[in-house]
Amino acid sequence: MTELRGKAVADHITSIASDDIAKLKAIGINPKLAVIRVGAKPDDLAYERGILKRFEAAGCKCEVFELSATCSQKELDECFDARNKDDMIHGILVFRPLPKHLNDEHIRSTINPRKDIDAMGPYNQAELFAGKKEAYAPCTAQAVMEILKFYNIDLTGKRVTVVGRSMVIGKPVSIMLTSANATVTICHTKTADLSSELKRADIIVAAAGRPRMITAGDVRPEQIIIDVGMSADQNGKLCGDVDYENVAPLVDSITPVPGGVGAVTTSVLLSYTVASAKKKVYGKV
Amino acid sequence: MTELRGKAVADHITSIASDDIAKLKAIGINPKLAVIRVGAKPDDLAYERGILKRFEAAGCKCEVFELSATCSQKELDECFDARNKDDMIHGILVFRPLPKHLNDEHIRSTINPRKDIDAMGPYNQAELFAGKKEAYAPCTAQAVMEILKFYNIDLTGKRVTVVGRSMVIGKPVSIMLTSANATVTICHTKTADLSSELKRADIIVAAAGRPRMITAGDVRPEQIIIDVGMSADQNGKLCGDVDYENVAPLVDSITPVPGGVGAVTTSVLLSYTVASAKKKVYGKV
Repeated sequence: MTELRGKAVADHITSIASDDIAKLKAIGINPKLAVIRVGAKPDDLAYERGILKRFEAAGCKCEVFELSATCSQKELDECFDARNKDDMIHGILVFRPLPKHLNDEHIRSTINPRKDIDAMGPYNQAELFAGKKEAYAPCTAQAVMEILKFYNIDLTGKRVTVVGRSMVIGKPVSIMLTSANATVTICHTKTADLSSELKRADIIVAAAGRPRMITAGDVRPEQIIIDVGMSADQNGKLCGDVDYENVAPLVDSITPVPGGVGAVTTSVLLSYTVASAKKKVYGKV
Repeated sequence: MTELRGKAVADHITSIASDDIAKLKAIGINPKLAVIRVGAKPDDLAYERGILKRFEAAGCKCEVFELSATCSQKELDECFDARNKDDMIHGILVFRPLPKHLNDEHIRSTINPRKDIDAMGPYNQAELFAGKKEAYAPCTAQAVMEILKFYNIDLTGKRVTVVGRSMVIGKPVSIMLTSANATVTICHTKTADLSSELKRADIIVAAAGRPRMITAGDVRPEQIIIDVGMSADQNGKLCGDVDYENVAPLVDSITPVPGGVGAVTTSVLLSYTVASAKKKVYGKV
C-alpha cells in the first residue's frame, strides 16, 4: 500500500508559487489574499492558521478581516465590498457557512470572478461546469485533482466513484473528473447500494463528511482512495470518511487523514492567489 | 414494452402554459419569445418551425430575428442587445452553434438571467449546478426530466447511466438527475466499457449524438430508456442513439425517435417563456 501524502504535493505547488511571487515582487506586484471571517468557529480558526502559515512561508501577503459573530448583513457586505474593490487584493476567501442570521447571496453574486479563488460565484461555477481549465475550482476539489496529477494517476477511462454531492466538493470534483476523461458515478445518501458502487471503482473519492463510513468490506486490492473527509470521532480524534486503519492495508494507495487532501488545500489557495495577480499583470496565464 | 411518447407530455405542459397565458393576457401581459437565427441551417429551420407551431397553438407570441450567415459580430451583438433590453420580450433563444466567424461570448455573458430560457449564461448554469429548482435548464435536459415525471418514473436511488457530457444535455441532465436523488454515471467517448455501464443501469439517458450506437447487446428487460439523440442515418431517415427496432422489444419502456424527447422540447421552451413573464409580474413563481 502506498500512502499518498499531501505534503509532497503541497511543497511542489508552493515551490512553483514562490518562484512566481518572487518574479511578481521584482516588478512591484505583491500578491495578496483577503480572508473574511465572521465569528471564531474552531474549524475556521484552524483553517486560518493553516493559510497564514502557508502564505507566510511562501512570502505571500494574507490579511484576515474579522467580524463579530453578531455582525449585521450590512457590516458583512460593506467589509466584503471594500475588499472586492481594493486593487491591492487579488483573492478573497469568505469562511462559510456564515452564521444563520447572515446570507452570502450578495457576496456570491457580486464577487469579482478574478478574485473568486474558492469558486463561490456563478462565473467560475459555470466555467467549471463547462470544463474550462482557466476557471477557479473550490480549493478542496482542486486539491483532489492536484494529488491525482502529482502521483501520476491516469484518469482516462477510469471508473471513479465520488461519494457526496455538495457544491464545495462532490459536484465540482465530479465534473472536473469527467472533464479529465474519467467515467464518474456520483453517489450520495440516497444511493441504493453504495458498497457495490464503491467496489467496482478504480478510484474512490470520499467526500461525504461521515466519519469512517467506508469500511474494509467496500474495497478491492487495486483501488486508489482519495479521502476528503475531515471529522472528529467520538474521542475527538481527526478522521476521514474512510476507516483508514482497516482499509489502508487492503488497497493499492490511499490518502491519510490528516496529512492528505487537507494538507494540499492551502497550497491551492496560494497558487490561485498568485494566478490572480499574474492574470492582472500578464492577462491570461 | 411501453412506448414513452412525447406528445402526451408536451400536450400536458402546453395545456398548463395556455391557461397561464390566458391569465396573463387578461391583465395585459403578452408573453413573448425572441428567436435569433444566423443563416438558414436546415436543423435550425426545422426547430424554428416546431417552435412557431407550438407557440401559435398556445396563443403565445414568438418573433424570429434573422441575420445573414455572413453577418458581423457587431450586427449579431446589436440584434441581441436590443432583444435583451426590450421589456416586451420575456425569453431569448439563440440558435447555436453560431457560424465559425462569430462567437457567443458577449451573448452568454450579458443575457438577462430572467430571459435566459435555454440556460446559456453563467447565472442559470450555476444555479442548475447548485440544484436550484427555479433555474432554467437547457430545454432538452428539462424535456428529459418532464418525460420521467409525466410517466411517474421514480428516480430516488435509481442507477442512471447518461451517455454524453455536452453542456446542452449530458452534463446538465446528470446534475439534474443527481439533484433528483438518482445515482448517476456519466459516460462518454473515453469510457472504457460502455456496454457494462449501460447494462447495469435502471434508466439509460442516451445523449451521445451517435446514430443507433446502443444496441440489443447493451440492454436488459427491466430498463427504461430515454433517447435524446436525433440524427439522420445514411438513408436520410431520422433516428436516435438507440437501435430502436432491435432494442425496444427487449426493454421495459423507451422513447421513440422522432416523437419522444424532441416532441417535448418546444413545450418546455413555451413553459419557460410563460414562467419568465409570470416572474416579471408576480415575482418568484
